[in-house]
Amino acid sequence: MSTGHHEASWRLPGSDPAAGTDVRHFQAMARTAERGTFDSVFFADSPALAADVRRRPAGALDPTVLLTAIAGATERIGLIATASTTYEEPYHLARRFASLDHVSGGRAGWNVVTTASEDAARNFGRTALPSHAERYARAGEALDVVRALWDSWDDDAVLADKGAGVWGDPDRVRPVEHRGAAFSVRGPLDVPRPPQGHPLLVQAGSSPDGKDLAARYADAVFTAQQTLEDAQAFADDLRRRAAGLGRDPWSVRVLPGLVPVLGATTAEAREREEELDRLIVPEHALRQLAALLRVAPDELSLDRELPAVLPDEESVEGMRSRYALVVSLARRERLTVRQLIGRLGGGRGHRTFSGTAEEVADTMLAWWRSGAADGFNVMPPALPSGLEEFVDQVVPVLRERGAFRSAYAGTTLREHYGLPRPADRRSRGARVPGQAVPAVAGVPA
Amino acid sequence: MSTGHHEASWRLPGSDPAAGTDVRHFQAMARTAERGTFDSVFFADSPALAADVRRRPAGALDPTVLLTAIAGATERIGLIATASTTYEEPYHLARRFASLDHVSGGRAGWNVVTTASEDAARNFGRTALPSHAERYARAGEALDVVRALWDSWDDDAVLADKGAGVWGDPDRVRPVEHRGAAFSVRGPLDVPRPPQGHPLLVQAGSSPDGKDLAARYADAVFTAQQTLEDAQAFADDLRRRAAGLGRDPWSVRVLPGLVPVLGATTAEAREREEELDRLIVPEHALRQLAALLRVAPDELSLDRELPAVLPDEESVEGMRSRYALVVSLARRERLTVRQLIGRLGGGRGHRTFSGTAEEVADTMLAWWRSGAADGFNVMPPALPSGLEEFVDQVVPVLRERGAFRSAYAGTTLREHYGLPRPADRRSRGARVPGQAVPAVAGVPA
Repeated sequence: MSTGHHEASWRLPGSDPAAGTDVRHFQAMARTAERGTFDSVFFADSPALAADVRRRPAGALDPTVLLTAIAGATERIGLIATASTTYEEPYHLARRFASLDHVSGGRAGWNVVTTASEDAARNFGRTALPSHAERYARAGEALDVVRALWDSWDDDAVLADKGAGVWGDPDRVRPVEHRGAAFSVRGPLDVPRPPQGHPLLVQAGSSPDGKDLAARYADAVFTAQQTLEDAQAFADDLRRRAAGLGRDPWSVRVLPGLVPVLGATTAEAREREEELDRLIVPEHALRQLAALLRVAPDELSLDRELPAVLPDEESVEGMRSRYALVVSLARRERLTVRQLIGRLGGGRGHRTFSGTAEEVADTMLAWWRSGAADGFNVMPPALPSGLEEFVDQVVPVLRERGAFRSAYAGTTLREHYGLPRPADRRSRGARVPGQAVPAVAGVPA
Repeated sequence: MSTGHHEASWRLPGSDPAAGTDVRHFQAMARTAERGTFDSVFFADSPALAADVRRRPAGALDPTVLLTAIAGATERIGLIATASTTYEEPYHLARRFASLDHVSGGRAGWNVVTTASEDAARNFGRTALPSHAERYARAGEALDVVRALWDSWDDDAVLADKGAGVWGDPDRVRPVEHRGAAFSVRGPLDVPRPPQGHPLLVQAGSSPDGKDLAARYADAVFTAQQTLEDAQAFADDLRRRAAGLGRDPWSVRVLPGLVPVLGATTAEAREREEELDRLIVPEHALRQLAALLRVAPDELSLDRELPAVLPDEESVEGMRSRYALVVSLARRERLTVRQLIGRLGGGRGHRTFSGTAEEVADTMLAWWRSGAADGFNVMPPALPSGLEEFVDQVVPVLRERGAFRSAYAGTTLREHYGLPRPADRRSRGARVPGQAVPAVAGVPA
C-alpha cells in the first residue's frame, strides 16, 4: 500500500491518503531505497479492487507503468513488477518486461503470480476463481513461453549493415512455435533480447505448487515467515526442490518479508507499533479476516479466539499459503481475533522486527547466518517515513558489520543479486534450424 | 519506425540502427516535438514481429512502457499509445491507460486498433486472423467496457477521512457488471478516475467499420489520404456519421498523415526524396507489397504496373483500407511496382508534402482551410533529423501566419485538442444504485 504496509498507516498525521496515484511519491521512495543501496523496489499487485474502499487506500497504478516511471527517476536500483499469468497473455508479458528491461538498462524483474482472487476472476470473464492446479499449470506453461520469447532473438541478431541494406540476421531471430494446453504462441518476440537476457524471475507462493514453480523457474522467492525455524525449514525445502530439478540450490535467493518498527529504545518501538494498531478500525478488519477464512463475519468475535472448526486447507482454492499461515499463527499463540487483526494489520503475515536499529540488524543477521534468509523484503509499516528510518538507521549498522554493500558494484538487477546473465540460444549450443553442425577444423569434409 | 517513416531511413549515415530500443532517442524526439508545441507524440504498433528482419529495424518497445518513459522526460506534450482490442483484455487496457494518464498528469491517449495481422493472431492462440466483422464488434464492446471502467470511480470518491477511519466512499465506486458477447467484466477498476476523465480516444481504420467505430467513440482520427479531395470526402463522411449518432460533428479531430520532405529549394527537397528512395532494396519491398496484395511475389514485376486482376477488396480480411488505398494509388497514377514501392516506402500510403518550409506550410494551410484536416499527423521520413527540421523551419511559418500556438495553453491532451473533460457518472446525473432521488427542500415527506 502506498502509505505503508500497516493497514492503518494512511491515518497517521504525516501520511498522504492520495499517494497511490502520485508517481512522485513512489519515485522519491525509490531514490531513498537507492540511497540505501537496496537491490530493488517491489510492488505486490492484483488486477481487482480490494472489496472495501472504506478501510484503506484502494486502487494502484499498473505495475509496469509505475516501475517504468521509477526507472526514469533512478540509476541503479532494480525494479520488480508483479504480473499475473492467469489473466495475461505470455506474449504481452514477455514484451512488457523486455521493454522495462531495455528502458531501465537491465533492472527489470517480474514477480510471477497466479492471482488468488475471485474479484480478479470476475474482471476477466470468469465466474469463479480457476482452481489452484489450473492456475499453477498455466503459470508453468506461461513461463516456458515467456523465456522462449526472450530467447527468440540472439544477442547479436542485429547486423545493421547499412551498405548492404541488411538490418537483422533472420537466422538469429527465430519463432518459438509453442503449442501447449493453455497457449499457442508462434513468436518471435517483437523486442530484441533484453539486456539481462532474462529479466529476473521472482515467485512468492508458498503452497507446494508455488514452491515447485519457484524451484523450477525463480531467481528469487519472497516469503512470509513468522519464526526463524519456519523460515529455515522453508528455505531448506525450497533448495531441496531446486536441487531435485538439477539446479544449484544456492542460485535461488530466499527473501522473507520483514516489517521493521524502529525506536530509540525497545520500549519506544513497541509503543509505535501499538499506536498503529490502535488506528485499525476492527470492524473493517474483521470482515476482511472472515473473507480470508471463508466464514461469515458473525462467526468471529473480536475478543475470542478463532472458531475451533474452520474450512479444511485443501478446500481453499485461493491464497492457500496465506490461509495456512494465519490459522497457524492464531492457534500457536492462542490469539484473540483482535490480537490477530493487530498482527495481520501490521505485517499481513510477515514477521515484525521491532526494536532499536541495532536490535533489528542483529535479528536480520541471525536469520541470515542461520540460512533462513539470503536477504529480506523490507516492508515498513508507514511510508515513506519507515523506509527513510530504515535506510538512515539500520543500513549503516549492516554496513559497519560488513554484511551489506556501501555502493552498487554492478548495474543490473542480476548483478545486484549476484546471479549470472543467461546465455542466448546460440551460445548455449542449441541447434539452430537450418544451420549445419560446425565443421571441425582440419578434418576434411 | 525509430529511424523515420521512410523504410530505408535506417541506412542514412546519421541514423542509429539500434534506436528502437534506446529510450533516450525517443525522449529526445518528444522534447523536440514539445519545443514545437505539438499536441502529442504517437506510435503505431502491432504485437508481432514484422516478417522480414533483413529489410529494416524490427521490434519495438511496448507502447505504454515507452510512453511512460517519455512522460518523465517531458512536461506538456500528449502521449498517444497504440493498443489492440483484439488481443488485450479491456480491464488491463482501462487500467494501463488510466495509469499513464495519472503518471503524466492527464496527457494519455489511446489509439484503438483491431490489429489486422496474421502474425499477431498466431502470437495469441489463433491460427488465422479473426474476421473484420468480429474484430470490430469486439472493439466496440471493449470500448464500452473501458469507458465504463474509467467511470467506475466518481471524481470525488476518495474521502480520506483520517479521523473516522474512512478512506473511500463505497457509493462513489461502483462495479460495471458488464456481460456481453466478447467480455464479462465486473469492475470496478482498481485505479481512481483518470485526470482527463477519459484518456483521449484515437482511431485510425478507414474502412466503413473503422469509420463507424470512430464516429461513435473517437476524439481524433488518424487517416492516410493522398489527395485533398479524398481527404475532404473522408472528413465529410466521418462528420456525417458522427452527426448521425447524435454527436457534434466537429468534436472529432481529423488528422491526415503528412510526410514532410524539406529543402532550401523545391528541387533540393525533391532530390532528398529521391536519395531516400534509392536506398530502398526493391526485392525486400516487393515481397512486402506482394503480401499486402495477397499475391505471390513472382506475380509482381518491378518495371510493370500491378497485375490487372487482384483479390476483391471485400475478400481482404486485414488492412482493408490500406489495401484499397494502395491499389487505387497505383491504378490512378499508373505506377510501376518500382514507383509504387518508392511512394509507399516514403510515406506508407500517407501524403508526402515536399518543398520549402513555406511551400509545406502553404499546403498544410490549404488542407486545413478546406476542411480536409483539423491538424496533421507529422511523419518525417528520417528521425530525429526530419522532426528537428520541421520544428525549426515549418512550425515558425505556421506560427507567423497565426495558424499554430506558440505556447501550450493547457496541461492535458484534451486541452491541447480543445476537447472537454467528460463529466463523471454522478455529475452526468446517472442514477446511482441504492441512492434515493434527492428530496425537494420544503416539501414534507
